[in-house]
Amino acid sequence: MRKNYLLTPGPTPLPPKVCEALARPIIHHRTPQFQAVLKEVYAGLKHVFQTDNDVFILASSGTGAMEAAVANLFSPGDTVLIVEGGKFGERWTEICRAYNINTEIINVEWGKAVSHLEIEKRLKANIAIKGVFATLCETSTGVVNDIKAIGSLVKNTSALLIVDAISGLGAIDLKTDDWSCDVVVSGSQKGLMLPPGLGFISVSAKAWVFAENSRNPRYYFSLKAAKKAYDKNDTAFTPAINLIIALDEVLKIIKQDGLEKIFLRHRRLADATRRAMKALGLELFAPTASSDVVTAVKVPQGLDGEKLVKSMRDLYGVTIAGGQSELKGKIFRIAHMGYIDEFDIITGISCLEKALTNLGYKFELGRGVKAAEEAFLK
Amino acid sequence: MRKNYLLTPGPTPLPPKVCEALARPIIHHRTPQFQAVLKEVYAGLKHVFQTDNDVFILASSGTGAMEAAVANLFSPGDTVLIVEGGKFGERWTEICRAYNINTEIINVEWGKAVSHLEIEKRLKANIAIKGVFATLCETSTGVVNDIKAIGSLVKNTSALLIVDAISGLGAIDLKTDDWSCDVVVSGSQKGLMLPPGLGFISVSAKAWVFAENSRNPRYYFSLKAAKKAYDKNDTAFTPAINLIIALDEVLKIIKQDGLEKIFLRHRRLADATRRAMKALGLELFAPTASSDVVTAVKVPQGLDGEKLVKSMRDLYGVTIAGGQSELKGKIFRIAHMGYIDEFDIITGISCLEKALTNLGYKFELGRGVKAAEEAFLK
Repeated sequence: MRKNYLLTPGPTPLPPKVCEALARPIIHHRTPQFQAVLKEVYAGLKHVFQTDNDVFILASSGTGAMEAAVANLFSPGDTVLIVEGGKFGERWTEICRAYNINTEIINVEWGKAVSHLEIEKRLKANIAIKGVFATLCETSTGVVNDIKAIGSLVKNTSALLIVDAISGLGAIDLKTDDWSCDVVVSGSQKGLMLPPGLGFISVSAKAWVFAENSRNPRYYFSLKAAKKAYDKNDTAFTPAINLIIALDEVLKIIKQDGLEKIFLRHRRLADATRRAMKALGLELFAPTASSDVVTAVKVPQGLDGEKLVKSMRDLYGVTIAGGQSELKGKIFRIAHMGYIDEFDIITGISCLEKALTNLGYKFELGRGVKAAEEAFLK
Repeated sequence: MRKNYLLTPGPTPLPPKVCEALARPIIHHRTPQFQAVLKEVYAGLKHVFQTDNDVFILASSGTGAMEAAVANLFSPGDTVLIVEGGKFGERWTEICRAYNINTEIINVEWGKAVSHLEIEKRLKANIAIKGVFATLCETSTGVVNDIKAIGSLVKNTSALLIVDAISGLGAIDLKTDDWSCDVVVSGSQKGLMLPPGLGFISVSAKAWVFAENSRNPRYYFSLKAAKKAYDKNDTAFTPAINLIIALDEVLKIIKQDGLEKIFLRHRRLADATRRAMKALGLELFAPTASSDVVTAVKVPQGLDGEKLVKSMRDLYGVTIAGGQSELKGKIFRIAHMGYIDEFDIITGISCLEKALTNLGYKFELGRGVKAAEEAFLK
């Protein structure tokens, strides 16, 4: 007998209701039955995005929604400002460059959050900047950025604020409208507790003006086509039907639980995880800006980080994430996002203690679990 | 009690094994466990595509794979030849125009197949043509085109042959390599008996040369990125994990049944459906080129075609398709593709007889079902 536990920052475990919805006999998408589902889902997404803007559903992973933002809003030769500081910040740059858009980069040290003052400085220094690309939670480093502060700056300029909220939406706070986020993109396999395959994008009135003027080619990711279909409770192209039906279930769960309560739960899980890491003598990778969705932890000197992650998964059935790109082998990441409860975290920490022991790391067995238990008892 | 029957040309009903696979606990995609699945799936897709070319999987619907072909192979100002003759032929034109590619159109009458001689004539008249876009089965009209004949012409030119096999792949014959199809695109929700959400694209050596020279922007649909990941049994971006796991099951079913036997089954279902329509005094919309995946039928004079389709679905639970675009209300379409057996067809015909009777159409009750039974007994 072997049970599997998933503590990765996407995909996240699926609630039983989602598994059940995914397995239902499929229905046709151009029917009143499916339109009724779409109507509920479109309303539910506005609730989760905390926006009055339209939120469109794409049959793609989150990167498709990122490309939709770039392809629809800008034109070759435009200049944009990109906050890097991890693999996903860099993805904005890659996409913009693929579209021949000039990129100004804020090269944030991996593990740190961006300073909004730096953004202010750059916007003032170059008034040609038409868009600011930021990341809510940089999954590769575990950092959460202060989107509220960034939004309060960008809203006073002619530039758009485009936020990658793929990791984080539905798990930590993101007030699209209150924080003046013109475009927010997300995906299904993180806080929304679904398999990957859906991309989401919200578009403000300010952003629609940019969409009107963009000269980039686009078809599948055309926001204009998405909007035309949306207004009829439809999708521009064949939707990922069963994922959307499962999304309907997720949105009902979220509505019932309440966003504030969900955010609090993620904060508690993250806090307990961070305390446990410290109790084990481990160092957080992003101590000053650690997100509530994934905790990145430095691999102790002399230990093989890749072996640690592999042994947890292959020997004990607990899948966490290793480091990506330049952090490969140097950090591991425990996600506490989506359908995760306190005992999943206890399981993850317990398994980590087991694997660390096997690798010869010196610590008092049980101290991590104890620290988490103490946090949960508060 | 009400049972539902789906006889639409996508989505098609899901085999129980697929529903079960969709409902499994999700696994992470960057693991040896998922790589093993991808390895099997990549091999299985080659089998279904009847090709030695690489077949890439995109998290998108079929239109995304169509856009991938256009975005990766051509450049603004290039000239291509497009076979229209239905809504999906026209989609090639729309995508090419979105990318500023010059389009020469062969405007085939809806309900007819393209003449390969017309293609030959056009290719000879304009040697600047760099690509020929065709549709295996034009879902909107039920027409099947002779891709083999088209391939044998195009292979002797410097142009590429790009085939939309979204409807048809895995249900009717398409020999990618033997018929010299440079690029074949498909989707998951038709012959492959899955929910929508996966796009597929195969790329020949001849097409890769075009991909090297294309100046179109692309990122999510980049074939180069897809290839790089493919070679490591990976995908360029987060894959639609549970759809791919279910695809693995489908490909095993197809392998076990055998392609020839599957094609024969579709031919038998189509033949019985066509005979039934004639026995009811109804006229086929594409009598000279009717595909084995969907049968398009003219709505008899004086009958409301939309009401017919609606009453079958809303009163009796049998979903067939109506006409699209200019054929709205003028035809109905019964699909016999994917996980459909003889008794599903009998059910569909029986329900049609019921609905026709209600609408006042004069015919001898049971004649359609009898004609299908006779065909099945052969």
